[in-house]
Amino acid sequence: LNPVLQTFRDSPFTQMTLRALELGAVNLGQGFPDHAPPAFVQEALQQSFTGPQQYVPVAGLLSLREELARDAKKRLGLNLDAATEVTITAGATEAVQSALQGILQPGDEVVILEPTYDMYAPQVKLAGGVPVFVPLKFEGSYVLDAEGLKSALSEKTRVIILNTPHNPTGKVFTKAELQAIAALAIQHDLYVISDEVYDRLTYGAAHTCIHTLEGMQDRTITVGSAGKTFAVTGWRVGWAFASAALSKAIRGVHQWVSFCAPSPLQQATMLALKTAQTFDYSASVQQDYVQKRDFLSSALQEAGFPISRPEGGYFVVADVSHMGMTEQQACDWMLKVVGVASIPMGVFYDQGVSPFAGLRFAFCKGQETLEQAAERLYAGC
Amino acid sequence: LNPVLQTFRDSPFTQMTLRALELGAVNLGQGFPDHAPPAFVQEALQQSFTGPQQYVPVAGLLSLREELARDAKKRLGLNLDAATEVTITAGATEAVQSALQGILQPGDEVVILEPTYDMYAPQVKLAGGVPVFVPLKFEGSYVLDAEGLKSALSEKTRVIILNTPHNPTGKVFTKAELQAIAALAIQHDLYVISDEVYDRLTYGAAHTCIHTLEGMQDRTITVGSAGKTFAVTGWRVGWAFASAALSKAIRGVHQWVSFCAPSPLQQATMLALKTAQTFDYSASVQQDYVQKRDFLSSALQEAGFPISRPEGGYFVVADVSHMGMTEQQACDWMLKVVGVASIPMGVFYDQGVSPFAGLRFAFCKGQETLEQAAERLYAGC
Ligand SMILES: CSCCC(=O)C(=O)O
Ligand SMILES: CSCCC(=O)C(=O)O
Repeated sequence: LNPVLQTFRDSPFTQMTLRALELGAVNLGQGFPDHAPPAFVQEALQQSFTGPQQYVPVAGLLSLREELARDAKKRLGLNLDAATEVTITAGATEAVQSALQGILQPGDEVVILEPTYDMYAPQVKLAGGVPVFVPLKFEGSYVLDAEGLKSALSEKTRVIILNTPHNPTGKVFTKAELQAIAALAIQHDLYVISDEVYDRLTYGAAHTCIHTLEGMQDRTITVGSAGKTFAVTGWRVGWAFASAALSKAIRGVHQWVSFCAPSPLQQATMLALKTAQTFDYSASVQQDYVQKRDFLSSALQEAGFPISRPEGGYFVVADVSHMGMTEQQACDWMLKVVGVASIPMGVFYDQGVSPFAGLRFAFCKGQETLEQAAERLYAGC
Repeated sequence: LNPVLQTFRDSPFTQMTLRALELGAVNLGQGFPDHAPPAFVQEALQQSFTGPQQYVPVAGLLSLREELARDAKKRLGLNLDAATEVTITAGATEAVQSALQGILQPGDEVVILEPTYDMYAPQVKLAGGVPVFVPLKFEGSYVLDAEGLKSALSEKTRVIILNTPHNPTGKVFTKAELQAIAALAIQHDLYVISDEVYDRLTYGAAHTCIHTLEGMQDRTITVGSAGKTFAVTGWRVGWAFASAALSKAIRGVHQWVSFCAPSPLQQATMLALKTAQTFDYSASVQQDYVQKRDFLSSALQEAGFPISRPEGGYFVVADVSHMGMTEQQACDWMLKVVGVASIPMGVFYDQGVSPFAGLRFAFCKGQETLEQAAERLYAGC
């Protein structure tokens, strides 16, 4: 069998969900909403029933690509040709995988900033590349180490993977940080794969799409997903925005990896996007999520854990270093004694180590779930 | 960009669909049903709206895996453990891709029987392997050339890809042929990836699942799909049946290629399978499809084209060699003058050539579509 697989592990997120189920713990481990999707999204799903049930073109349903191009222009300031620069994939996962496999040759290096969602490194390896890890600097909050990034670049570097808003830290990269990354990408002639699935979920901080920066148009692949946009992570409808040449490469891989994304759910996503335009959906989801963030952040603080309030995304990281346990022990104790499932920060490191013993908690949950978690935190900690 | 992509082409099936649309031709090119899915499948889709909308485990919804294991036992005589030996993928496409990428190391050889659906060779290349083509013998109908297969095997061969019922020829491999393939696979310690997406669509001939033959249990990956089973090719729910060890490798790739297949459509497939068990769905779909096969076969014959009636699948191949044109010219003429879209057999050859100038016609269409095609064939040929 392919020896690359030996370095892979089962999803720690799925595993934590299974353990939480087993033990009756409140599941703040895996990042999926346990609240219902917005009513207009459920309606869109209902309406998609009379839509396409057969193959759509490899690039995706044209009407969905058009909605996405319209939305990208309005929200991100990104000008895209729906015909040649937007590709619909089997979730953001497949968008990143198809981009990597469309670009890399064996031995090419790909820079990943740590801590990191655990998907990118195995994907790089599957595509025949070599992941190179660069830590974010920790100064109370996480900041880009532009010098560190620069010195990690070699003759073999082809791609920098970026994720903003960031999983697990909740960081939203500043425009200045993105400009520094862009400058290096341009200087070294690199591609940037920018995973922006949480782009609507910012809490005060401004999200910048690196794709819109000068000189980045032809070297950026911006990745998004219906799952994170509409709280339906099981739909597996994602997208990649890229120049026509890059999109051709992405489609070349996508065609043989999954041929096309699920047609009824592409239709539902298109309908939901149409409705989302008729009111300020981003503002409404932000309003909702900032409350979730604040509720869980305060609960963790009141239970004695230092946190820094995330600027975006689904997650808040609690510092558990005062407990005198390893992170893994703290996670087990939290799961079994307190009854709340979390993810140890170690999961998000490959080469580096977390600057503190930390646990990541997901707040993309219904109010009841969050309240139950808070009660357990107060009672158990 | 990845140089492997240079050998890839746009899907000739999608392209023919676009040309047929443009020209108002009856589309018997691409193999997708243009009739509605069965009523119970539409109901299952409706019911799935209240089902899971979030991530399911990487291996797939357990209830779907259980239904598939039950069905495989009943219909194919295949004993599977739903927990460890069934994996749900983003269509049969991703099942084959994940299997190949889970097995192959760079330079490994994979045998493909020609003519062949055009997906396997690019998938082998994407996974770093080398496709080796072995022609089927043509003796009025297509038969396995066991000697040819044997002599194509080398030290580097790791996999044989099989497709039965067969696209494009409509051949259903006989048990004796499958035994010959199995004997070689066992002797040379090879895996067999058996694409059996048309396994319910046989017209008299008996479908044998090579997985059930002696010695094949641990070396076969059997691939199927909801798309072909329930006439919903856009759902992108496929599956791979394989030993626990092989399934682990498939899941290892699948996790990073698409993470999981679309949850609502997994649920809909599970519900449809449950209902399909309550009556003889295979018999009913066969009854329906044998009529489509016969209708189109007769129309082609009456229009002057020799055909041999397919034993299974979606397609019938017409011999156009008496027309004194190349296959491509005949296809163009059929499209533009007669007004019926087809696929030239050349599309299904990489190394070899078709033994006769042939066009492939899809009969997985509504009766109206088939009648319109017949009228045009009578009028134009
Ligand atoms: C696909 S499982 C992981 C979900 C997620 O985004 C997370 O928990 O980090
Ligand atoms: C996925 S497009 C091709 C569909 C098909 O099976 C065929 O036409 O052969």
